[in-house]
Amino acid sequence: MQQNKKTLIVFSGDLDKALAAFIIANGAAAMGSEVTMFFTFWGLNILRRAKGVHVKKSFLERLFGSMMPRGANKLGLSKLNFGGLGAKLMKFIMKQKNVNTLPELIEQAQALGVKMVACSMSMDVMGIRPEELIEGIEYAGVATYLGEADEANVNLFIG
Amino acid sequence: MQQNKKTLIVFSGDLDKALAAFIIANGAAAMGSEVTMFFTFWGLNILRRAKGVHVKKSFLERLFGSMMPRGANKLGLSKLNFGGLGAKLMKFIMKQKNVNTLPELIEQAQALGVKMVACSMSMDVMGIRPEELIEGIEYAGVATYLGEADEANVNLFIG
Amino acid sequence: MQQNKKTLIVFSGDLDKALAAFIIANGAAAMGSEVTMFFTFWGLNILRRAKGVHVKKSFLERLFGSMMPRGANKLGLSKLNFGGLGAKLMKFIMKQKNVNTLPELIEQAQALGVKMVACSMSMDVMGIRPEELIEGIEYAGVATYLGEADEANVNLFIG
Repeated sequence: MQQNKKTLIVFSGDLDKALAAFIIANGAAAMGSEVTMFFTFWGLNILRRAKGVHVKKSFLERLFGSMMPRGANKLGLSKLNFGGLGAKLMKFIMKQKNVNTLPELIEQAQALGVKMVACSMSMDVMGIRPEELIEGIEYAGVATYLGEADEANVNLFIG
Repeated sequence: MQQNKKTLIVFSGDLDKALAAFIIANGAAAMGSEVTMFFTFWGLNILRRAKGVHVKKSFLERLFGSMMPRGANKLGLSKLNFGGLGAKLMKFIMKQKNVNTLPELIEQAQALGVKMVACSMSMDVMGIRPEELIEGIEYAGVATYLGEADEANVNLFIG
Repeated sequence: MQQNKKTLIVFSGDLDKALAAFIIANGAAAMGSEVTMFFTFWGLNILRRAKGVHVKKSFLERLFGSMMPRGANKLGLSKLNFGGLGAKLMKFIMKQKNVNTLPELIEQAQALGVKMVACSMSMDVMGIRPEELIEGIEYAGVATYLGEADEANVNLFIG
């Protein structure tokens, strides 16, 4: 186990929880930690490209995909979302207060060398293809997560 | 602290989060870790037997119990559940893709020696009796959890 | 890293998750651990005073504040809340069973020396002022959290 390694499982695809995950990840990376974020289930939506990509999908995969937010700019809040109004309000307030937006935090994470891994098994279940996710992502399963968690001193599940 | 011990608090009773918890737990156990899962609050619903069991309960306990899902096959999704339709859809897709179902993962966990502990205090509050839970479960409180977490190198809260 | 230090990020402002957080925190403190709880986003609502306090706020801050529960007695359940009825029912049952209420658990935490820290960045975003929170709280950011997590052997995210 190293003092300077952290892992985060990002299970949630809610804006507020995604913000918390990236604020922790970027803070740790800025302080010299090696950080790995594992995006699984709804958390994969954070990594989706804003524009639809032409990929072959079954009807159910397409249905599932169409019901989920497409990327960091489309996420809702876990509470007080009111059909997206709450998320818009929070983003407006964050801009006013000069707090980084989620897309900025993601860019920052990549610049800081935070490793972002998409869970290949959830991608399969949810019918999400690598082409639909932003660049700079790795793909792996639970064994990779566990190997990294074993070496880390802080492991969080953002659910 | 041992390199090969993990604990998971399973607070959530949502199908998607329960799947994540068991995939992590079973993966760790398969890789040689000692794993303990603590089921508390809504997480207790994962362990409920599908069939109602005759036990003495107060009116409120009975009311509470009747509003909560009875076991791993009845859980809903934390998002896009649409009154159970989302959960059915996800189970259908998982079957198509040959991914293990939650009841299979629970069986697998027991075969792998994952220790499953039900939180006795939440059982008391929610009016759930040991007879209502599946076999092979232990019963303990927060002190037991903390003792195990102190010996583990990965501790997650699945909330 | 010390065997006897724990940190909890309390992101959720739901009654059930707040109860779980304080039961873990107080249990650990009673068993001799140094415990720090970081309250962020919705978790800040747990620390709000029941009575409104006269502070200068923008219209949006006031709006946001008015939609969120004011303190430990006003929180809802994450499931089966039914507009507060579920939370009332759970509090009634807990009283019947002589389980500590959330306000009692908070008092107990303070008596046991649990350090309670409010996230200054979320306070800024959500427009919550220090005067609006209960006494005995510290204020800090993510760097402080990470410093403490590095020294702890159990770190949980209650989301």
